Amino acid sequence: MKNFTYQVPTKFVFGRGTENGVGAEVRALGGTKVLIHYGGGSAVRSGLIDRVKASLDAEGIAHVELGGVQPNPRDTMVYKGIELARREGVDFVLAVGGGSSIDSSKAIAHGLKYDGDFWDFFCGKASPRETTLLGVVLTMSAAGSESSNSCVITQESTLTKRGLRSELNRPKFAIMNPELAMTLPPYQIACGATDILAHIMERYFTCEPDVDLTDRLCEGAMQAVIRAAKIAVQDPSNYDAQAQLMWGSTIAHNETVGVGRVGDWGSHQIEHELSALYDVAHGAGLAVVFPAWMRYQMHKNVMRFAQFAVRVYGCPMDFEHPEKTALAGIEAHEAFLRSIGMPITLRELGAKAEDIPALAAKTKKTDPVNQTTGGAFPMKVPDIEAILRIADR
Amino acid sequence: MKNFTYQVPTKFVFGRGTENGVGAEVRALGGTKVLIHYGGGSAVRSGLIDRVKASLDAEGIAHVELGGVQPNPRDTMVYKGIELARREGVDFVLAVGGGSSIDSSKAIAHGLKYDGDFWDFFCGKASPRETTLLGVVLTMSAAGSESSNSCVITQESTLTKRGLRSELNRPKFAIMNPELAMTLPPYQIACGATDILAHIMERYFTCEPDVDLTDRLCEGAMQAVIRAAKIAVQDPSNYDAQAQLMWGSTIAHNETVGVGRVGDWGSHQIEHELSALYDVAHGAGLAVVFPAWMRYQMHKNVMRFAQFAVRVYGCPMDFEHPEKTALAGIEAHEAFLRSIGMPITLRELGAKAEDIPALAAKTKKTDPVNQTTGGAFPMKVPDIEAILRIADR
Repeated sequence: MKNFTYQVPTKFVFGRGTENGVGAEVRALGGTKVLIHYGGGSAVRSGLIDRVKASLDAEGIAHVELGGVQPNPRDTMVYKGIELARREGVDFVLAVGGGSSIDSSKAIAHGLKYDGDFWDFFCGKASPRETTLLGVVLTMSAAGSESSNSCVITQESTLTKRGLRSELNRPKFAIMNPELAMTLPPYQIACGATDILAHIMERYFTCEPDVDLTDRLCEGAMQAVIRAAKIAVQDPSNYDAQAQLMWGSTIAHNETVGVGRVGDWGSHQIEHELSALYDVAHGAGLAVVFPAWMRYQMHKNVMRFAQFAVRVYGCPMDFEHPEKTALAGIEAHEAFLRSIGMPITLRELGAKAEDIPALAAKTKKTDPVNQTTGGAFPMKVPDIEAILRIADR
Repeated sequence: MKNFTYQVPTKFVFGRGTENGVGAEVRALGGTKVLIHYGGGSAVRSGLIDRVKASLDAEGIAHVELGGVQPNPRDTMVYKGIELARREGVDFVLAVGGGSSIDSSKAIAHGLKYDGDFWDFFCGKASPRETTLLGVVLTMSAAGSESSNSCVITQESTLTKRGLRSELNRPKFAIMNPELAMTLPPYQIACGATDILAHIMERYFTCEPDVDLTDRLCEGAMQAVIRAAKIAVQDPSNYDAQAQLMWGSTIAHNETVGVGRVGDWGSHQIEHELSALYDVAHGAGLAVVFPAWMRYQMHKNVMRFAQFAVRVYGCPMDFEHPEKTALAGIEAHEAFLRSIGMPITLRELGAKAEDIPALAAKTKKTDPVNQTTGGAFPMKVPDIEAILRIADR
């Protein structure tokens, strides 16, 4: 087990009706002028934005709004948000939505306090030193951005998707009402569940020994998310399934299940290229990449993949041939993904085999010195190509 | 699943050598004069207090010290600490030790900011509104007080042990080096592990439906703690087992595994009377009370106790007679407690059968209106007597 520092100061307000308390939370933090930042029209149509405004109004807090955040949020929207917020004297950014709205809001919050181009933070030219007060009303269980230290933005002109890790990325509060996720189409619920699982799996597939407690927490969280995803995709109005997914999205991505180990994150890097090029949902991309990654990497740590199979999917252990158990676990995971309507091949995703070399070459090298991608199972470009070829089935 | 609010702002700095960074943590928070508050001489003899002082000195931070905190920390020590801290102009309280030192420090920190008698907070006469900066260097895996919102103090003149729940009880930071727990005698390690498990079990044994995710997290944490306890009691120098226990103590008691449900806490209330009267270790008291409580309560929610047996101890499910599975789980838990050297009878604890009626009568009524103790499985005095009689075997 490795040394670690863990701090998640975000206040979580979870449950039915909690969005109506957003004004009080903003007020408690001293916000006086709020930018309400959201995505498509569903937050407007459902009346959520009106409820948020009413709650702010009741506390006498001024607000402006900026909708239109797209999935895989763009730098162009961030520039627009920074300009509007500067003009209006905004001192609080409130994201209403899922990971895209939250990440766009995080970037706006940082940019507001920075004289240069906010993209500096994403291309590695600078690190944010301060940020604007930020709160979240979550409507989607997926990215875990409501308390994570990460933020991912796509540069529209180059289709480059880049992430920023910073403790300044953690929102002050996250209001989480599982009812708000009930209006999502089943496909998006499935994409979200896939993303949640991938966040746990990126941490779970480590080569660090003696991390039993976090292993067990990972396995427990995965079992609960798998069970809830099947229910919520069939019946989006099931409150309790939505509640497991929503709290699961948070647990999965704020290090509660990931301390003391080096995770991998290679699959995420590969997926970023897929969703940047084809504009597919992040979760759908992960559904395609992760099983292929597992099939390619399992031989490097067979017992860990066998442990996944036995403890998460209840596969029987083949003590003579652990690799058969490992493979059975991957097949069980693929069957689960299929059962909730996820693609597991590049073809289903609309990706083209001829793009594979370029996708592999463009994937971010997380270790620039060794020119490799991924922490626990480092990959070079040919490895990434091989994984994408497995997904091209 | 119930609505909940969750916020644990404590910064955790975990791993080998981390105590040497305590000065920097105090400085970052603005502390200028520290009260170092600790228990017996082992923290002095081991050189830990010297390392802590050296780290404070290196940052130019002044300090005074007060040792001698006893297990089941007393109000008398708290009064002494408040007086010393006032006289010396202390603006930061640093607990070095386990739950007793931390709880004594919490009470001092609150008392320093209060004009009245600090005991007002524990007997229900007042609630703390502000507190002093508080940090922890943890040396014992048990109480979870390093990030919990609870604090328990015993009034020496009446042997009354009372708890205070307040968000102000959460320390600003907790420095956690599992090596510091290696010098503890195996009996104390076992007491600590029992306390950790009890904190999870108090949350786990609920009647709230649809809490699958936190159930799974509880079960995973319990499995890891049980495994690590057996190793650490045999070999206290095993870093990785100590690491699981130390992080487990935190996870178990800061609501990570407890949100969205009503736990019980009746066993803790009964145990408080045992340790107040006989001055036994809290963990040892819990080892006696909890199995007896389980035997008495299992019939009220047989399937939950069967789930515990199957998922935590791997007992086979008896589908015709779930109560037999539930009982097998309790027996497995008793066997585990025995295997780490814990008592499971009142006799072994040195308690007397003739005290049972008085102990039952004195146990705090957590619901004063209905005169009952315990959240999920409320007990009246005769129930508590019956449980103590089961423990008198």
